[in-house]
Amino acid sequence: MDKTFHLSTGPLPGSRKIHVPGELFDLKVPMREIILSPTRDERGKCRENDPVVAYDTSGPYTDPAHEVDLNKGLPRVREAWIEERGDTVKLDGPSSTYARERLLDRSLDALRFEHVNKNPRVARPGKRVTQMYHARQGTITPEMEFVAIRENQLADRVREQYKRERGERGAARLPGRITPEFVRQEVAAGRAIIPANVNHPESEPMIIGRNFLVKINANIGNSPVASSIAGEVEKAVWAFRWGADTIMDLSTGKNIHETREWIIRNSPVPVGTVPLYQALEKVGGDVKRLSWEVYRDTLVEQAEQGVDYFTIHAGLRWHHVPLTIERLTGIVSRGGAIMANWCATHDRENFLYTRFEEICEILARYDAGISLGDGLRPGCIADANDEAQLAELKTLGNLTREAWKRDVQVLVEGPGHVPMQKVRENMELELEWCNEAPFYTLGPLVTDIAPGYDHVTSAIGGAMIAWHGTSMLCYVTRKEHLGLPDRDDVKEGVITFKLAAHAADLAKGHPAAYYRDWAMSKARYEFRWQDQFHLALDPERAILLHDETLPGEEHKRARYCSMCGENFCSMRANEKLREKLNAK
Amino acid sequence: MDKTFHLSTGPLPGSRKIHVPGELFDLKVPMREIILSPTRDERGKCRENDPVVAYDTSGPYTDPAHEVDLNKGLPRVREAWIEERGDTVKLDGPSSTYARERLLDRSLDALRFEHVNKNPRVARPGKRVTQMYHARQGTITPEMEFVAIRENQLADRVREQYKRERGERGAARLPGRITPEFVRQEVAAGRAIIPANVNHPESEPMIIGRNFLVKINANIGNSPVASSIAGEVEKAVWAFRWGADTIMDLSTGKNIHETREWIIRNSPVPVGTVPLYQALEKVGGDVKRLSWEVYRDTLVEQAEQGVDYFTIHAGLRWHHVPLTIERLTGIVSRGGAIMANWCATHDRENFLYTRFEEICEILARYDAGISLGDGLRPGCIADANDEAQLAELKTLGNLTREAWKRDVQVLVEGPGHVPMQKVRENMELELEWCNEAPFYTLGPLVTDIAPGYDHVTSAIGGAMIAWHGTSMLCYVTRKEHLGLPDRDDVKEGVITFKLAAHAADLAKGHPAAYYRDWAMSKARYEFRWQDQFHLALDPERAILLHDETLPGEEHKRARYCSMCGENFCSMRANEKLREKLNAK
Repeated sequence: MDKTFHLSTGPLPGSRKIHVPGELFDLKVPMREIILSPTRDERGKCRENDPVVAYDTSGPYTDPAHEVDLNKGLPRVREAWIEERGDTVKLDGPSSTYARERLLDRSLDALRFEHVNKNPRVARPGKRVTQMYHARQGTITPEMEFVAIRENQLADRVREQYKRERGERGAARLPGRITPEFVRQEVAAGRAIIPANVNHPESEPMIIGRNFLVKINANIGNSPVASSIAGEVEKAVWAFRWGADTIMDLSTGKNIHETREWIIRNSPVPVGTVPLYQALEKVGGDVKRLSWEVYRDTLVEQAEQGVDYFTIHAGLRWHHVPLTIERLTGIVSRGGAIMANWCATHDRENFLYTRFEEICEILARYDAGISLGDGLRPGCIADANDEAQLAELKTLGNLTREAWKRDVQVLVEGPGHVPMQKVRENMELELEWCNEAPFYTLGPLVTDIAPGYDHVTSAIGGAMIAWHGTSMLCYVTRKEHLGLPDRDDVKEGVITFKLAAHAADLAKGHPAAYYRDWAMSKARYEFRWQDQFHLALDPERAILLHDETLPGEEHKRARYCSMCGENFCSMRANEKLREKLNAK
Repeated sequence: MDKTFHLSTGPLPGSRKIHVPGELFDLKVPMREIILSPTRDERGKCRENDPVVAYDTSGPYTDPAHEVDLNKGLPRVREAWIEERGDTVKLDGPSSTYARERLLDRSLDALRFEHVNKNPRVARPGKRVTQMYHARQGTITPEMEFVAIRENQLADRVREQYKRERGERGAARLPGRITPEFVRQEVAAGRAIIPANVNHPESEPMIIGRNFLVKINANIGNSPVASSIAGEVEKAVWAFRWGADTIMDLSTGKNIHETREWIIRNSPVPVGTVPLYQALEKVGGDVKRLSWEVYRDTLVEQAEQGVDYFTIHAGLRWHHVPLTIERLTGIVSRGGAIMANWCATHDRENFLYTRFEEICEILARYDAGISLGDGLRPGCIADANDEAQLAELKTLGNLTREAWKRDVQVLVEGPGHVPMQKVRENMELELEWCNEAPFYTLGPLVTDIAPGYDHVTSAIGGAMIAWHGTSMLCYVTRKEHLGLPDRDDVKEGVITFKLAAHAADLAKGHPAAYYRDWAMSKARYEFRWQDQFHLALDPERAILLHDETLPGEEHKRARYCSMCGENFCSMRANEKLREKLNAK
């Protein structure tokens, strides 16, 4: 393999990495501090502006103090905590037959990650190691304190200021401040999950639940048609940089075991997969040969590499399949289509359903979460909220409760393509049928007719459903329905979903969400152009678009912009107005 | 002036122009017919797919039978109808002093539109000429029949087919079919307007109201910082092509009188302006010298050129201004800032408010509509739905009723920046306070922190508020807050708002809205790639993005795409599944 990686590292413009220490545990939560310039008043006097602290998914890649070496992987921030809990042991080697074979295959050495984890960690016999288990025992883990600090974004530091000046306006259904104990309660109740496989100590803990910041997932992965290991790792680091809270490796091409190792060892965010894809690859794409045994070995293989959550299409039952026959677009989920074909081929119930208890037992040993796949999600407006979709959702509720019996953390996946007037129903049924387990949706896309703009059609549905309670949005790029996203598409997709998630955080009244909008608008009103760029979700594009019309440093100090020019600038007019009113 | 225009003309891919005749009047409604290829079933047999008829704003520019000559202007499709009504006369020359001066100024000949309208039309003494007047008299005008046919998009022709196969799923608050009489009733009630200045006979009638398709407006216009007449005309034709239902010429640069003439004579869609901008130019940008007399002359000047609706900031009252002092971003509307400064400078009530009756009398003579400007719209999340904004909205309700007394058609403008949880309140208050006059909003943008992506932040708010009842959305481009949109930004903005408006049409259950989504998804399921491109709101981008991964003609016949490849294609798997289930 060509091990030349082209990474974008270093801090974002105007920002620096800070680390906020824990109070209960010896931990440091990395955040991004955006430094602002002072405000100059009419008399030319300066008044400092507090920096804005932003949630930071970029990991050590944006920390100048960290020397990036993809061959070594990231620092193992969680290793000591896992070790100290004393409830896991290290194995002599991988338990999976396939993983052992790959390890012994010398022809793979050239493309193998150098420091591959040869001694996976697993629960000691009789021990339960999941965050949910600990939460239910009343134990606050370091992971829980970490996410509590992370969610607050140091908003306490500035809240009084902007509250005094403007006041919070969101419908406050969230606590004023996220505490470790609140995190514990939410995880114990199953309303939130902390995906944290004991074999992925590199990940910086994060939480997915509707009483927290809305998260976004970016899909990456080989395709049989295109891409390479280096390309996928680069794409992952790129996605972290712009705000991906988790990534899913959906590889279906060659060497996906080795690609996954590279990605996990270098990922500061939880990694999800759909093990069914690899299982099918192992049997040459032939559903006839697809079996529980192959699947089981794949699950173990991936769990021991450190995958933090698995999409498992266990809710698609054999008797649901005929419900899709009259659909306009049938089954559009890859995993759903595979399992429906398996059922039809073998004339038997979906083995992911019949073996679900066993799956839970396996995953519990690693604290790998389950993301219950919606194999029957609607693939078009015409099929939205139909019988097939809702029958599966109800089953996902049953499976959620099964998993929880074994302390396995659960996400529930949702649609898809849904017209706006049917979005809310999806959320309400999920909350009711799945006991408030975190909902994780793909959009939904609110119309079918805009290929090339499906990042937008899905951001509309995504913002709405996240406001109503969806905990994580799977990004959609503008290439959806058309092709494989490249670097620019990934960035645009991530930023678009970041803004949709943030819009939902505002609408939900997340205590830390309002400050950045407030600071941005204050900077805008005061013509602090550089601060506006730095506070933007995508500073690069903001600068680029500004400079297309007015390049040159002097315009970044100008008290107007090219849209209206100097005489028609409402902000300037406003300044004059205030002077007049104050003079009276 | 360099009269070399670079226009994009000719039909969109896979489409042809059709003309649907009227039943009551001798008229032809142009529409775009998208021709689809046949479906091939398992046995290779072909079944035809009905063409999809799309609402067409592009005017004669996409009609190969029409020879484009910008120097001549467009055919005057409405001239005979206006003439036949016999309620207008042609003047010897413009009534506006300024317009007469410009006409006599030989130095402007080089940049003047060749066939400038020297004999504007005006109501005969004692006659009322507005569509609202006719509607209230019980008269169905040709314009009303035109919009009725246009709104239906020939959906009757295909409805039975897709109803049978899938059924409509929208909450049907609209009639099953739009009739001329329904149009008349809506216009008479003020719930909808047909902007149709008697001096703009080139425009193809369209309707703005919440019981019709959601419309979008694209802003164009000179800025003192950049652009040219040719550039603005090109931008306008470009906006028509992609779906702008109206355009607003917001020019503030040089020669805006002449630019406007070029634009109106070549515009098949209604044109709006903010006459205040030009009035202020005329007094050198000095609010001290800005007077009712200058404004009045500007209103007449523009009305006689054919402007179809005017944004008038009459609702901003002197006593509202202090309410903005504690705002984070004060007054962000250009017109609002100008009038607030005028009030403060002269210590007098806004002359647009005190002279409102006179304004209505003037506009009624040309059937120019009023778009009641929201000079106090919030410019950031923190200022949304505040006292200043709502006080102005209430005033706009009073002004609506004043205008209606004189049969003047009214739009009410709305925000701005509003977090999602406050979007609906805007719509509900508007309906209540403004007696259901059509609401026309700018977005709203649901967060402040995404400059460079504000087409998306505003499409989210726009889709939501349009679902709740907003009749027209003003587009926002990704350059918002940063610079002047170029050609690509305009197109992206138009398409983004087209999809938001369409999503709202689906959510509202517009009888003609579902068919295109249905046809697109059917094409997708049947791997009819060319049909998918042609049915897309932006066929150019769809083709481009598809070909980035899989160029070459053979892939446009492929029964898979680059996202999943052949073996992981759920659509293919689904085909096999149906075969299996059918075999049983």
